[in-house]
Parts: sequence; structure tokens; C-alpha cells
Amino acid sequence: MEPRISIITLGVADVARSTRFYRDGLGFETAMASEGYAVFRTGGTRLAIYPLDKLAEDVAPGITPAKGFGGITLAHNVRKKDEVASVLQLAEKAGGKIVKTPQDVFWGGYSGYFSDPDGYLWEVAWGPDFKFDDNGALVI
Amino acid sequence: MEPRISIITLGVADVARSTRFYRDGLGFETAMASEGYAVFRTGGTRLAIYPLDKLAEDVAPGITPAKGFGGITLAHNVRKKDEVASVLQLAEKAGGKIVKTPQDVFWGGYSGYFSDPDGYLWEVAWGPDFKFDDNGALVI
Repeated sequence: MEPRISIITLGVADVARSTRFYRDGLGFETAMASEGYAVFRTGGTRLAIYPLDKLAEDVAPGITPAKGFGGITLAHNVRKKDEVASVLQLAEKAGGKIVKTPQDVFWGGYSGYFSDPDGYLWEVAWGPDFKFDDNGALVI
Repeated sequence: MEPRISIITLGVADVARSTRFYRDGLGFETAMASEGYAVFRTGGTRLAIYPLDKLAEDVAPGITPAKGFGGITLAHNVRKKDEVASVLQLAEKAGGKIVKTPQDVFWGGYSGYFSDPDGYLWEVAWGPDFKFDDNGALVI
């Protein structure tokens, strides 16, 4: 098995709302999009949105989505410390919520969290030791 | 905001157990690892594991993890159709569960699902139109 995550899919309540959030709000280009789903051209791993009930059905019969924090976070690492605040503001303007304001964190970095329209959590993080390759992926 | 997911973090019940699953079972190389967390060198976007209660605490006070399907799936796309079954078998041997056996799916591909020791869901998918770049990322 090659060590690879090809696609992350978020099960959403309203594909049109989430498309507006990610495409128009955050500026993620759509690689594929229809009324029923969208795939965003995020570097390396693609981000997809799909109706939550259909995603549950796709996994297996009888799977019921839970309410609340599902235990997964996505992190968007930035190159400069002051980008943490500006990305959080962008997300709020796009219809997301700032869940944790930017702050110094125990591992020596600076970060905050926003939630998307379905409550999925993104950490926006800067750290003095993070380096990026030419594609923007972390070099660690 | 650059269109990028830097890290996906799974909140887990037992870091050692999950490290064995991903590192020893699936063969994902660790970029960083300690008793308290691990980061795996997955192409482009990194996969991290961290104790679930600490991850919830990191997001914000008062966030309680929900039980059950959290609404997010990860997909591992393979280059050949018969790799779907072999990756699912690898995951089962590593301590995961096959949640959906390999089958033809409505969009023209062939896929199945496994869950990791905490129940996080991975789709293993092959499709006739998927193409990969030199790093194994999808070209879509």
C-alpha cells in the first residue's frame, strides 16, 4: 500500500452552501462539480463534498451520522504568523465560525480554529519550524 | 488562502495501537513519533494521530467527541482494480475491519471500505478514469 490519502470527503447538509463556502469564500478551485457533489483542487489530497446521508449510505447500510465532533481535524498551515488571523477572518466572512481565536500554543506555534458550515474543524497554524515544498506541502 | 490541507489529524483512543496499525500494518513511514502522537509521511497531506481527548481540548473547551460516524471519509485510490481487495486484506490483517467488501459502484469504479482501530473510515477505490501524478496524487 502506498502511503497516500487521495481524497478527503466531507458529508455535508447542503452541497450548494458548502460549495459557496469553499469555492467562493475560501477560493478553492473546483476540479469537478455538479448539483450533487464537488471536488476541490487542493494540493496533493483532494477535498470533496457530498451529501452526508449519501456518504453514510455509500459506506454501508445502517450507518447513521453522529452529531458533534467526529474526532477529525484538518489543518491548513500558513507561511507567516499573521496569516493565521487573516485566514480565520476569511473563513468567518465566508460563512464559517471562528471556534478558537489565534493564540500561542504549547508546541511553540500560533494557531486558531474555524468551523465550516457543517461544523467541520480546520486548524489554521503557523510554526517556526514548518517548511514547505514547491507545492505547498509540509516538509516533515 | 492557498488551497491546501496540510495535515489530517485523527483523534485516537490509543496512540500506540494506532501507530502499530498505520506504521507496522499499512506500512506508513513515521515522519515524527513519540508516545503521545505520530505523524505519518503520506504524500502531500500528512496524516497525524493524537489522543482524542487532547485533540478535542486543543480545538476548544467543552467540545465532546461524538460516538459513531463523524461524517468524514478518507479515500485511498489505487492504480489497479485488484489492489482494492489486497489493500482491504492488508488493513484487516493489520487490525482493521472490512466494512464494505469490494464491489462495482454506481460511478463506474470498484471500491470497498475498511475502518481503522478507532472506526475511522477509509475507502479503497479504483476507477477507470483516475490518473496519478509522479507523487501518486490524483490528477483531477
